[in-house]
Amino acid sequence: MQKIIECIPNFSEGRDKKKIDKICKAITNVKGILLLNVESDIAHNRSVITFAGTPVAVLEAAFQATKTASRIIDLTRHKGEHPRMGATDVIPLVPISGITMKECVRLAQKLGSRIGIELKIPVYLYEKAAKREDRKNLANIRKGEYEGLKKEIGKNADRKPDFGPKYLGKAGATAVGAREPLIAYNVNLDTKNIKIAKAIAKKIREKDGGFKSVKALGFELKDKGITQVSMNLTNYKITPPHIVFNAIKKEAKAKNVEIIESEIIGLIPKKALIKGAKHLLKIKKFKNDQVLENILKKKLQNFQKPLQ
Amino acid sequence: MQKIIECIPNFSEGRDKKKIDKICKAITNVKGILLLNVESDIAHNRSVITFAGTPVAVLEAAFQATKTASRIIDLTRHKGEHPRMGATDVIPLVPISGITMKECVRLAQKLGSRIGIELKIPVYLYEKAAKREDRKNLANIRKGEYEGLKKEIGKNADRKPDFGPKYLGKAGATAVGAREPLIAYNVNLDTKNIKIAKAIAKKIREKDGGFKSVKALGFELKDKGITQVSMNLTNYKITPPHIVFNAIKKEAKAKNVEIIESEIIGLIPKKALIKGAKHLLKIKKFKNDQVLENILKKKLQNFQKPLQ
Repeated sequence: MQKIIECIPNFSEGRDKKKIDKICKAITNVKGILLLNVESDIAHNRSVITFAGTPVAVLEAAFQATKTASRIIDLTRHKGEHPRMGATDVIPLVPISGITMKECVRLAQKLGSRIGIELKIPVYLYEKAAKREDRKNLANIRKGEYEGLKKEIGKNADRKPDFGPKYLGKAGATAVGAREPLIAYNVNLDTKNIKIAKAIAKKIREKDGGFKSVKALGFELKDKGITQVSMNLTNYKITPPHIVFNAIKKEAKAKNVEIIESEIIGLIPKKALIKGAKHLLKIKKFKNDQVLENILKKKLQNFQKPLQ
Repeated sequence: MQKIIECIPNFSEGRDKKKIDKICKAITNVKGILLLNVESDIAHNRSVITFAGTPVAVLEAAFQATKTASRIIDLTRHKGEHPRMGATDVIPLVPISGITMKECVRLAQKLGSRIGIELKIPVYLYEKAAKREDRKNLANIRKGEYEGLKKEIGKNADRKPDFGPKYLGKAGATAVGAREPLIAYNVNLDTKNIKIAKAIAKKIREKDGGFKSVKALGFELKDKGITQVSMNLTNYKITPPHIVFNAIKKEAKAKNVEIIESEIIGLIPKKALIKGAKHLLKIKKFKNDQVLENILKKKLQNFQKPLQ
């Protein structure tokens, strides 16, 4: 099977379309890259670019994008709601097919090293690629944001980067890591009472003793007169959408509130949905090979292998 | 995209393993055929073989299997619970990828014609390939089974085959057709009362005014002390599993009965499960391209196309 990884770098520019286009171009100029999605947020002043390809192509594209961003984004002048520490703020690598998480961790180290040496940008390895327990959580690395890190990076040994110099230029610092695909999943409730949405979010998120790999916040959707539990499911293999859906449904029901609808923002792996159907339809003893397309794909792959 | 069709012929032999193996061999001897599943039933004295491949390979394999079956299965001596009229009883063709139903109908005609001319077996086109409204339903074609058809085929103009002779040999007659993938789906109920399972089956099946493309029967699973609604969903695009699951749940609840579990027998198309998850999770505005694997596959296909 062809090795395919996905990369979802976040850049600290969400307003200037010309600059965002330049970064996209640095990515798509690399042969073999599939640009999947570009989302810019004006309030956050941040863009999230999703692309995929072979490991070699993805590493080259991520490096070129970081190089371009370091030239056109100035962190000393950047303002936005979202916490940030670098022109290229984070670069997560995600295994998609034919590749393990371990290999993605090695690729993250390789990419981080190159960014540190060639671009003189401090790099912190995070999530699965972290070399220190406290760096698994991005929030710890980004504490104090660009301004705070700039003051501390040369003095505090705890903040020494994994690669690159111990000082911050205008391009700031970059976190490079490996992780499972993240699912952005929102559930809308038929209540205006923000307290209910916030209470449910607290109940289900990992931080407060809820489900593992779930981040959740309660929001008001004022234009619709409803509230929302907005989630990031950082490992759908541990906690898939249907588990939080059922939990929210139960919590809401206890307060006489109903779920109106849910939404997937961006992409979701096929397996997460198939798992959901299997669970909600109470299907017993179901094997992946019972999915017509899976067994066909498997048989076709075996079939196309040359005889040894 | 490569044209792939699936073929699920039913043969009137479910007891003699040597004979079943001979038929399988006739199929797998054809280059490019992927054998997906073989299920033999002793009580029914019938085997269902599932295979897939390109249209040319599948047509050749189906012909060779029919030829082999006509030599080793004698309908004048066949006994089994399942209705049957031929050594090769039915040959449905199912579009899987890169091919339309219309093309599959043409392939069914081509295959039927060849079986009629070369093997001297009467062939009836059924389901989507039927040339007469009453032949869409296989039960009409197979009325009276082998014995009844043998008496009528030469006399009754209504029973004239679409291809082949107007008489039945020991190999009987074969129905050749095209259809959507069929999902065999069972839902188990926590009641011993067979009347409840039968009443629910009646309520949901097309024949008695229920859901379109649903065949359903109520059964007792004596060894487990429960009952079952056993279904064939003949077009999951019209009625997918989650629709009947929810309907059965509602009907059962009204009688204070719960669904224990459900089961998929054999294969199910990926889309049927994804549709189910989308519905049960109340996901709004979901596009197929939001499935990570779908957008990747699409982009990869565009990417691999040579420049024109």
